[in-house]
Amino acid sequence: MDKVELIGLDADDTLWESEIYFAAVEEKFLDLMGKYSSEDDLERTLSSNEISNLRVFGYGVKSFTLSMIETAHRASNGTITSTDIDKIISWGKELLQHPVTFLDGVEEAVHSLTKDFNVFIITKGDLLHQRNKIEESGLDALVTGFEIFHEKDPNSYRDFLEERNISPENFVMAGNSLRSDIFPVTSIGGKAIHIPHDLTWDYEKIVSDDAPSSGYKILERISDLPQLLRSGSELDS
Amino acid sequence: MDKVELIGLDADDTLWESEIYFAAVEEKFLDLMGKYSSEDDLERTLSSNEISNLRVFGYGVKSFTLSMIETAHRASNGTITSTDIDKIISWGKELLQHPVTFLDGVEEAVHSLTKDFNVFIITKGDLLHQRNKIEESGLDALVTGFEIFHEKDPNSYRDFLEERNISPENFVMAGNSLRSDIFPVTSIGGKAIHIPHDLTWDYEKIVSDDAPSSGYKILERISDLPQLLRSGSELDS
Repeated sequence: MDKVELIGLDADDTLWESEIYFAAVEEKFLDLMGKYSSEDDLERTLSSNEISNLRVFGYGVKSFTLSMIETAHRASNGTITSTDIDKIISWGKELLQHPVTFLDGVEEAVHSLTKDFNVFIITKGDLLHQRNKIEESGLDALVTGFEIFHEKDPNSYRDFLEERNISPENFVMAGNSLRSDIFPVTSIGGKAIHIPHDLTWDYEKIVSDDAPSSGYKILERISDLPQLLRSGSELDS
Repeated sequence: MDKVELIGLDADDTLWESEIYFAAVEEKFLDLMGKYSSEDDLERTLSSNEISNLRVFGYGVKSFTLSMIETAHRASNGTITSTDIDKIISWGKELLQHPVTFLDGVEEAVHSLTKDFNVFIITKGDLLHQRNKIEESGLDALVTGFEIFHEKDPNSYRDFLEERNISPENFVMAGNSLRSDIFPVTSIGGKAIHIPHDLTWDYEKIVSDDAPSSGYKILERISDLPQLLRSGSELDS
Protein backbone atom coordinates (compact mmCIF):
# COMPACT_ATOMS: atom_id res chain seq x y z
CA MET A 1 0.00 0.00 0.00
CA ASP A 2 0.99 3.70 -0.18
CA LYS A 3 3.37 4.79 2.56
CA VAL A 4 1.57 6.33 5.54
CA GLU A 5 3.13 9.75 6.17
CA LEU A 6 0.53 11.24 8.45
CA ILE A 7 -2.26 9.84 10.63
CA GLY A 8 -5.20 12.00 11.68
CA LEU A 9 -7.19 11.00 14.74
CA ASP A 10 -10.60 12.46 15.45
CA ALA A 11 -11.07 13.40 19.13
CA ASP A 12 -14.71 13.49 20.36
CA ASP A 13 -16.12 9.95 20.51
CA THR A 14 -12.96 8.55 18.98
CA LEU A 15 -10.40 9.30 21.71
CA TRP A 16 -12.77 10.28 24.52
CA GLU A 17 -16.44 10.42 25.39
CA SER A 18 -18.35 13.46 24.21
CA GLU A 19 -21.79 12.55 22.95
CA ILE A 20 -22.78 10.91 26.26
CA TYR A 21 -22.35 14.30 27.96
CA PHE A 22 -24.48 16.05 25.33
CA ALA A 23 -27.10 13.29 25.64
CA ALA A 24 -27.21 13.67 29.44
CA VAL A 25 -27.84 17.41 29.07
CA GLU A 26 -30.49 16.74 26.45
CA GLU A 27 -32.22 14.41 28.96
CA LYS A 28 -32.25 17.21 31.53
CA PHE A 29 -33.56 19.58 28.88
CA LEU A 30 -36.42 17.21 27.99
CA ASP A 31 -37.29 16.89 31.69
CA LEU A 32 -37.29 20.66 32.15
CA MET A 33 -39.46 21.19 29.10
CA GLY A 34 -41.78 18.22 29.66
CA LYS A 35 -44.61 20.45 30.84
CA TYR A 36 -44.69 22.35 27.54
CA SER A 37 -44.36 19.73 24.87
CA SER A 38 -43.95 16.04 24.12
CA GLU A 39 -40.48 14.52 24.13
CA ASP A 40 -40.71 13.68 20.45
CA ASP A 41 -41.64 17.20 19.45
CA LEU A 42 -38.93 18.69 21.64
CA GLU A 43 -36.25 16.39 20.29
CA ARG A 44 -37.29 17.18 16.75
CA THR A 45 -37.38 20.96 17.33
CA LEU A 46 -34.06 21.01 19.17
CA SER A 47 -32.37 18.93 16.51
CA SER A 48 -33.68 21.07 13.66
CA ASN A 49 -32.72 24.29 15.52
CA GLU A 50 -29.24 22.93 16.13
CA ILE A 51 -28.74 22.02 12.51
CA SER A 52 -30.09 25.28 11.12
CA ASN A 53 -27.90 27.22 13.56
CA LEU A 54 -24.70 25.44 12.50
CA ARG A 55 -24.33 27.76 9.53
CA VAL A 56 -24.12 30.85 11.73
CA PHE A 57 -22.99 29.49 15.12
CA GLY A 58 -20.72 26.67 14.01
CA TYR A 59 -20.12 23.52 16.09
CA GLY A 60 -19.70 23.03 19.79
CA VAL A 61 -21.21 23.49 23.21
CA LYS A 62 -21.94 27.23 23.02
CA SER A 63 -23.84 26.69 19.79
CA PHE A 64 -25.79 23.80 21.37
CA THR A 65 -26.57 25.91 24.46
CA LEU A 66 -27.93 28.79 22.38
CA SER A 67 -30.03 26.34 20.36
CA MET A 68 -31.49 24.86 23.57
CA ILE A 69 -32.45 28.36 24.75
CA GLU A 70 -34.12 29.17 21.42
CA THR A 71 -35.97 25.87 21.54
CA ALA A 72 -37.08 26.49 25.13
CA HIS A 73 -38.48 29.88 24.14
CA ARG A 74 -40.37 28.54 21.15
CA ALA A 75 -41.64 25.32 22.72
CA SER A 76 -42.96 27.23 25.74
CA ASN A 77 -44.57 29.93 23.59
CA GLY A 78 -42.47 32.52 25.37
CA THR A 79 -43.47 31.46 28.87
CA ILE A 80 -40.27 29.77 30.06
CA THR A 81 -38.69 31.66 32.97
CA SER A 82 -35.24 33.20 32.85
CA THR A 83 -34.38 31.07 35.88
CA ASP A 84 -34.86 27.98 33.71
CA ILE A 85 -32.87 29.58 30.90
CA ASP A 86 -30.06 30.34 33.34
CA LYS A 87 -30.15 26.66 34.27
CA ILE A 88 -29.61 25.77 30.58
CA ILE A 89 -26.57 28.06 30.49
CA SER A 90 -25.18 26.37 33.61
CA TRP A 91 -25.51 23.00 31.82
CA GLY A 92 -23.52 24.48 28.94
CA LYS A 93 -20.80 25.51 31.37
CA GLU A 94 -20.75 22.01 32.87
CA LEU A 95 -20.47 20.49 29.39
CA LEU A 96 -17.47 22.72 28.70
CA GLN A 97 -15.75 21.49 31.84
CA HIS A 98 -16.49 17.79 32.09
CA PRO A 99 -13.37 15.67 32.63
CA VAL A 100 -11.74 13.87 29.73
CA THR A 101 -12.84 10.22 29.79
CA PHE A 102 -10.74 8.11 27.43
CA LEU A 103 -12.37 5.40 25.39
CA ASP A 104 -10.93 1.90 25.91
CA GLY A 105 -7.36 1.43 24.77
CA VAL A 106 -6.84 4.99 23.52
CA GLU A 107 -3.75 5.90 25.50
CA GLU A 108 -1.93 2.69 24.55
CA ALA A 109 -2.95 3.03 20.91
CA VAL A 110 -1.77 6.63 20.66
CA HIS A 111 1.50 5.75 22.42
CA SER A 112 2.05 2.95 19.98
CA LEU A 113 1.10 4.95 16.87
CA THR A 114 3.33 7.90 17.73
CA LYS A 115 6.36 5.60 17.93
CA ASP A 116 6.24 4.91 14.21
CA PHE A 117 4.04 7.58 12.70
CA ASN A 118 3.43 11.29 12.47
CA VAL A 119 0.09 11.71 14.29
CA PHE A 120 -2.24 14.73 14.39
CA ILE A 121 -5.44 15.11 16.39
CA ILE A 122 -8.02 16.65 14.05
CA THR A 123 -11.24 17.84 15.60
CA LYS A 124 -13.91 20.54 15.41
CA GLY A 125 -16.08 22.49 17.89
CA ASP A 126 -15.41 25.33 20.31
CA LEU A 127 -11.80 26.48 19.95
CA LEU A 128 -11.06 26.82 23.66
CA HIS A 129 -13.03 23.72 24.70
CA GLN A 130 -11.35 21.42 22.20
CA ARG A 131 -7.95 22.76 23.10
CA ASN A 132 -8.60 22.35 26.82
CA LYS A 133 -9.60 18.73 26.30
CA ILE A 134 -6.52 17.98 24.22
CA GLU A 135 -4.29 19.54 26.86
CA GLU A 136 -6.09 17.83 29.73
CA SER A 137 -5.75 14.47 27.96
CA GLY A 138 -1.98 14.82 27.91
CA LEU A 139 -1.98 13.42 24.36
CA ASP A 140 -0.68 16.75 23.04
CA ALA A 141 2.69 15.73 24.48
CA LEU A 142 2.72 12.59 22.31
CA VAL A 143 1.32 13.72 18.98
CA THR A 144 3.00 15.95 16.41
CA GLY A 145 0.20 18.51 16.67
CA PHE A 146 -3.50 19.15 16.59
CA GLU A 147 -5.89 21.13 14.42
CA ILE A 148 -9.37 22.37 15.21
CA PHE A 149 -11.25 22.66 11.92
CA HIS A 150 -14.24 24.98 11.52
CA GLU A 151 -15.74 22.25 9.34
CA LYS A 152 -14.44 18.77 8.53
CA ASP A 153 -15.05 19.01 4.82
CA PRO A 154 -12.86 18.05 1.85
CA ASN A 155 -11.42 21.58 1.56
CA SER A 156 -10.31 21.67 5.18
CA TYR A 157 -8.52 18.33 4.86
CA ARG A 158 -6.99 19.37 1.52
CA ASP A 159 -5.65 22.65 2.97
CA PHE A 160 -4.34 20.87 6.04
CA LEU A 161 -2.42 18.34 3.93
CA GLU A 162 -1.13 20.92 1.44
CA GLU A 163 0.32 23.03 4.25
CA ARG A 164 2.30 19.99 5.32
CA ASN A 165 3.24 18.83 1.83
CA ILE A 166 1.49 15.50 2.31
CA SER A 167 -0.30 13.81 -0.58
CA PRO A 168 -3.77 12.54 0.30
CA GLU A 169 -2.81 8.96 -0.57
CA ASN A 170 -0.21 9.09 2.20
CA PHE A 171 -2.76 10.26 4.76
CA VAL A 172 -4.97 8.07 6.96
CA MET A 173 -7.82 9.52 9.03
CA ALA A 174 -9.51 7.52 11.80
CA GLY A 175 -12.72 8.51 13.54
CA ASN A 176 -16.29 7.70 14.48
CA SER A 177 -18.11 10.01 12.09
CA LEU A 178 -18.81 8.98 8.51
CA ARG A 179 -19.76 12.56 7.68
CA SER A 180 -16.70 14.24 9.18
CA ASP A 181 -13.88 11.72 9.36
CA ILE A 182 -14.43 9.29 6.53
CA PHE A 183 -16.20 10.59 3.41
CA PRO A 184 -14.44 13.97 3.11
CA VAL A 185 -11.10 12.14 3.35
CA THR A 186 -11.85 9.37 0.86
CA SER A 187 -13.34 11.98 -1.49
CA ILE A 188 -9.94 13.72 -1.81
CA GLY A 189 -8.06 10.45 -2.27
CA GLY A 190 -7.07 9.85 1.35
CA LYS A 191 -7.48 6.67 3.38
CA ALA A 192 -9.99 6.43 6.20
CA ILE A 193 -10.76 4.07 9.03
CA HIS A 194 -14.18 4.15 10.61
CA ILE A 195 -14.23 3.31 14.34
CA PRO A 196 -17.94 3.46 15.20
CA HIS A 197 -19.10 4.63 18.62
CA ASP A 198 -22.34 3.35 20.17
CA LEU A 199 -23.48 6.91 20.62
CA THR A 200 -22.89 9.22 17.68
CA TRP A 201 -24.65 12.55 17.15
CA ASP A 202 -27.42 11.99 14.57
CA TYR A 203 -26.07 14.80 12.43
CA GLU A 204 -22.76 13.00 12.03
CA LYS A 205 -24.55 9.97 10.63
CA ILE A 206 -26.45 11.84 7.92
CA VAL A 207 -24.60 11.53 4.67
CA SER A 208 -25.66 12.26 1.15
CA ASP A 209 -27.04 9.40 -0.89
CA ASP A 210 -24.07 9.26 -3.20
CA ALA A 211 -21.54 8.82 -0.41
CA PRO A 212 -19.40 5.78 -1.15
CA SER A 213 -20.18 2.65 0.83
CA SER A 214 -16.69 1.27 0.37
CA GLY A 215 -13.17 2.62 0.08
CA TYR A 216 -12.54 2.67 3.81
CA LYS A 217 -11.93 0.12 6.56
CA ILE A 218 -14.02 -0.41 9.67
CA LEU A 219 -12.40 -1.20 13.01
CA GLU A 220 -14.24 -2.17 16.15
CA ARG A 221 -11.72 -0.58 18.48
CA ILE A 222 -8.84 1.86 18.28
CA SER A 223 -6.54 -0.73 19.94
CA ASP A 224 -6.40 -2.53 16.59
CA LEU A 225 -5.30 0.56 14.68
CA PRO A 226 -1.50 0.36 15.23
CA GLN A 227 -1.36 -3.26 14.05
CA LEU A 228 -3.54 -2.58 11.02
CA LEU A 229 -1.34 0.30 9.94
CA ARG A 230 1.89 -1.62 10.51
CA SER A 231 0.59 -4.66 8.62
CA GLY A 232 0.77 -2.72 5.38
CA SER A 233 -2.57 -4.12 4.23
CA GLU A 234 -4.59 -2.14 1.72
CA LEU A 235 -6.88 0.36 3.43
CA ASP A 236 -9.07 1.43 0.57
CA SER A 237 -10.54 -1.80 -0.61
CA MET B 1 17.46 46.01 12.11
CA ASP B 2 16.77 42.26 12.09
CA LYS B 3 15.40 40.91 8.84
CA VAL B 4 11.59 40.72 8.82
CA GLU B 5 10.65 37.16 7.87
CA LEU B 6 7.00 37.16 8.87
CA ILE B 7 4.41 39.85 9.54
CA GLY B 8 1.34 39.15 11.68
CA LEU B 9 -1.72 41.35 11.28
CA ASP B 10 -4.49 41.39 13.84
CA ALA B 11 -7.96 41.40 12.25
CA ASP B 12 -10.78 42.84 14.42
CA ASP B 13 -10.33 46.62 14.79
CA THR B 14 -7.04 46.48 12.90
CA LEU B 15 -8.21 45.38 9.44
CA TRP B 16 -11.96 45.86 9.87
CA GLU B 17 -14.51 47.24 12.29
CA SER B 18 -15.62 44.91 15.05
CA GLU B 19 -16.00 46.74 18.35
CA ILE B 20 -18.52 49.23 16.89
CA TYR B 21 -20.86 46.30 16.21
CA PHE B 22 -20.48 44.97 19.74
CA ALA B 23 -21.01 48.48 21.12
CA ALA B 24 -24.21 48.91 19.08
CA VAL B 25 -25.58 45.64 20.48
CA GLU B 26 -24.58 46.71 23.98
CA GLU B 27 -26.58 49.93 23.45
CA LYS B 28 -29.64 47.88 22.52
CA PHE B 29 -29.05 45.68 25.54
CA LEU B 30 -28.91 48.69 27.87
CA ASP B 31 -32.15 50.01 26.36
CA LEU B 32 -33.86 46.66 26.79
CA MET B 33 -32.72 46.37 30.40
CA GLY B 34 -33.23 50.03 31.35
CA LYS B 35 -36.38 49.23 33.31
CA TYR B 36 -34.51 46.89 35.66
CA SER B 37 -31.28 48.65 36.47
CA SER B 38 -29.15 51.74 35.88
CA GLU B 39 -26.90 51.87 32.81
CA ASP B 40 -23.80 52.02 35.00
CA ASP B 41 -24.74 48.94 36.98
CA LEU B 42 -25.68 47.05 33.84
CA GLU B 43 -22.44 47.92 32.08
CA ARG B 44 -20.44 46.88 35.11
CA THR B 45 -22.31 43.57 35.54
CA LEU B 46 -22.14 42.71 31.85
CA SER B 47 -18.45 43.48 31.67
CA SER B 48 -17.61 41.45 34.77
CA ASN B 49 -19.76 38.53 33.55
CA GLU B 50 -18.04 38.65 30.17
CA ILE B 51 -14.59 38.59 31.71
CA SER B 52 -15.33 35.84 34.21
CA ASN B 53 -16.89 33.75 31.42
CA LEU B 54 -13.82 34.03 29.16
CA ARG B 55 -12.10 31.21 31.05
CA VAL B 56 -14.85 28.73 30.19
CA PHE B 57 -16.50 30.21 27.07
CA GLY B 58 -13.47 31.77 25.39
CA TYR B 59 -13.68 34.82 23.11
CA GLY B 60 -16.23 35.82 20.52
CA VAL B 61 -19.85 36.60 19.82
CA LYS B 62 -21.40 33.41 21.22
CA SER B 63 -19.60 33.96 24.50
CA PHE B 64 -20.77 37.60 24.56
CA THR B 65 -24.36 36.54 23.79
CA LEU B 66 -24.43 34.00 26.62
CA SER B 67 -22.99 36.62 29.00
CA MET B 68 -25.73 39.09 27.99
CA ILE B 69 -28.39 36.47 28.74
CA GLU B 70 -26.88 35.70 32.15
CA THR B 71 -26.70 39.41 32.93
CA ALA B 72 -30.31 39.91 31.83
CA HIS B 73 -31.44 37.14 34.15
CA ARG B 74 -29.53 38.47 37.13
CA ALA B 75 -30.23 42.17 36.62
CA SER B 76 -33.98 41.47 36.25
CA ASN B 77 -34.03 39.17 39.29
CA GLY B 78 -35.33 36.38 37.10
CA THR B 79 -38.23 38.39 35.64
CA ILE B 80 -36.97 38.99 32.09
CA THR B 81 -39.17 37.25 29.52
CA SER B 82 -37.92 34.61 27.16
CA THR B 83 -39.12 36.82 24.30
CA ASP B 84 -36.52 39.39 25.36
CA ILE B 85 -33.90 36.67 25.71
CA ASP B 86 -34.72 35.44 22.24
CA LYS B 87 -34.16 39.01 21.05
CA ILE B 88 -30.67 38.93 22.60
CA ILE B 89 -29.91 35.72 20.68
CA SER B 90 -31.07 37.36 17.45
CA TRP B 91 -28.61 40.22 18.10
CA GLY B 92 -25.89 37.61 18.51
CA LYS B 93 -26.83 36.15 15.13
CA GLU B 94 -26.73 39.60 13.55
CA LEU B 95 -23.29 40.24 15.06
CA LEU B 96 -22.06 37.00 13.52
CA GLN B 97 -23.27 38.10 10.10
CA HIS B 98 -22.48 41.79 9.83
CA PRO B 99 -20.62 42.70 6.65
CA VAL B 100 -16.85 43.19 6.70
CA THR B 101 -16.13 46.95 6.84
CA PHE B 102 -12.48 47.66 6.15
CA LEU B 103 -10.69 50.36 8.11
CA ASP B 104 -9.12 53.12 5.99
CA GLY B 105 -6.29 52.05 3.75
CA VAL B 106 -6.34 48.39 4.74
CA GLU B 107 -6.68 46.81 1.32
CA GLU B 108 -3.88 48.92 -0.18
CA ALA B 109 -1.63 48.28 2.81
CA VAL B 110 -2.14 44.52 2.70
CA HIS B 111 -1.60 44.47 -1.07
CA SER B 112 1.62 46.37 -0.63
CA LEU B 113 2.88 44.29 2.31
CA THR B 114 2.24 40.97 0.62
CA LYS B 115 4.41 42.01 -2.34
CA ASP B 116 7.54 41.98 -0.20
CA PHE B 117 6.69 40.05 2.92
CA ASN B 118 5.25 36.84 4.24
CA VAL B 119 1.99 37.99 5.91
CA PHE B 120 -0.32 36.09 8.27
CA ILE B 121 -3.63 37.28 9.70
CA ILE B 122 -3.60 36.35 13.41
CA THR B 123 -6.85 36.73 15.28
CA LYS B 124 -9.00 35.17 18.01
CA GLY B 125 -12.74 34.65 18.68
CA ASP B 126 -15.34 32.27 17.27
CA LEU B 127 -13.69 29.86 14.85
CA LEU B 128 -16.38 29.99 12.16
CA HIS B 129 -17.06 33.72 12.51
CA GLN B 130 -13.41 34.75 12.21
CA ARG B 131 -12.93 32.45 9.28
CA ASN B 132 -16.04 33.77 7.53
CA LYS B 133 -14.83 37.34 7.93
CA ILE B 134 -11.38 36.52 6.56
CA GLU B 135 -12.94 34.80 3.56
CA GLU B 136 -15.49 37.55 2.98
CA SER B 137 -12.71 40.16 3.11
CA GLY B 138 -10.92 38.47 0.22
CA LEU B 139 -7.61 39.09 2.02
CA ASP B 140 -7.11 35.32 2.39
CA ALA B 141 -6.24 35.31 -1.30
CA LEU B 142 -3.37 37.76 -0.67
CA VAL B 143 -1.82 36.61 2.59
CA THR B 144 0.23 33.48 3.19
CA GLY B 145 -2.28 32.20 5.75
CA PHE B 146 -4.28 32.91 8.84
CA GLU B 147 -4.45 31.57 12.36
CA ILE B 148 -7.26 31.84 14.89
CA PHE B 149 -5.68 31.63 18.36
CA HIS B 150 -7.69 30.50 21.40
CA GLU B 151 -5.72 33.14 23.32
CA LYS B 152 -3.19 35.69 22.10
CA ASP B 153 -0.64 34.99 24.79
CA PRO B 154 3.15 34.52 24.61
CA ASN B 155 2.82 30.71 24.31
CA SER B 156 0.48 30.91 21.34
CA TYR B 157 2.81 33.27 19.48
CA ARG B 158 5.83 31.13 20.41
CA ASP B 159 4.17 27.93 19.14
CA PHE B 160 3.03 29.67 15.97
CA LEU B 161 6.56 30.89 15.20
CA GLU B 162 8.25 27.59 16.12
CA GLU B 163 5.97 25.68 13.76
CA ARG B 164 7.20 27.94 10.98
CA ASN B 165 10.85 28.01 12.04
CA ILE B 166 10.80 31.77 12.52
CA SER B 167 12.82 33.40 15.29
CA PRO B 168 10.85 35.98 17.29
CA GLU B 169 13.30 38.75 16.34
CA ASN B 170 12.36 38.20 12.69
CA PHE B 171 8.63 38.53 13.44
CA VAL B 172 6.59 41.76 13.49
CA MET B 173 3.02 41.85 14.81
CA ALA B 174 0.72 44.82 14.15
CA GLY B 175 -2.61 45.40 15.86
CA ASN B 176 -4.83 47.60 17.99
CA SER B 177 -4.67 45.69 21.26
CA LEU B 178 -1.82 46.21 23.71
CA ARG B 179 -2.91 43.11 25.61
CA SER B 180 -3.20 40.76 22.65
CA ASP B 181 -1.04 42.08 19.82
CA ILE B 182 1.82 43.99 21.45
CA PHE B 183 2.92 42.83 24.92
CA PRO B 184 2.82 39.05 24.34
CA VAL B 185 4.95 39.57 21.22
CA THR B 186 7.56 41.90 22.73
CA SER B 187 7.71 39.60 25.77
CA ILE B 188 9.04 36.74 23.62
CA GLY B 189 11.50 38.96 21.77
CA GLY B 190 9.36 39.83 18.76
CA LYS B 191 8.68 43.26 17.29
CA ALA B 192 5.29 44.92 17.59
CA ILE B 193 3.52 47.89 16.09
CA HIS B 194 0.55 49.33 17.89
CA ILE B 195 -2.11 50.83 15.61
CA PRO B 196 -4.68 52.20 18.07
CA HIS B 197 -8.40 52.20 17.21
CA ASP B 198 -10.76 54.82 18.64
CA LEU B 199 -12.96 52.07 19.95
CA THR B 200 -11.17 49.17 21.63
CA TRP B 201 -12.83 46.69 23.97
CA ASP B 202 -11.96 47.71 27.55
CA TYR B 203 -10.61 44.24 28.26
CA GLU B 204 -8.00 44.62 25.53
CA LYS B 205 -6.70 47.77 27.20
CA ILE B 206 -6.16 46.24 30.63
CA VAL B 207 -2.56 45.26 31.00
CA SER B 208 -0.60 44.34 34.04
CA ASP B 209 1.35 47.07 35.77
CA ASP B 210 4.71 45.72 34.74
CA ALA B 211 3.92 45.71 31.02
CA PRO B 212 6.67 47.59 29.18
CA SER B 213 5.84 51.08 28.02
CA SER B 214 8.45 51.00 25.27
CA GLY B 215 9.94 48.41 22.94
CA TYR B 216 7.28 48.82 20.28
CA LYS B 217 6.31 51.46 17.71
CA ILE B 218 3.01 53.29 17.46
CA LEU B 219 1.45 54.04 14.07
CA GLU B 220 -1.59 56.19 13.51
CA ARG B 221 -2.76 54.28 10.47
CA ILE B 222 -2.05 50.97 8.75
CA SER B 223 -1.29 52.83 5.49
CA ASP B 224 2.07 53.79 6.97
CA LEU B 225 3.02 50.20 7.81
CA PRO B 226 4.54 49.11 4.46
CA GLN B 227 6.84 52.15 4.34
CA LEU B 228 7.92 51.74 7.97
CA LEU B 229 8.83 48.11 7.39
CA ARG B 230 10.66 48.82 4.16
CA SER B 231 12.61 51.71 5.70
CA GLY B 232 14.56 49.22 7.82
CA SER B 233 14.33 51.52 10.86
CA GLU B 234 14.61 49.96 14.30
CA LEU B 235 11.21 48.82 15.57
CA ASP B 236 12.01 48.10 19.17
CA SER B 237 13.35 51.38 20.40
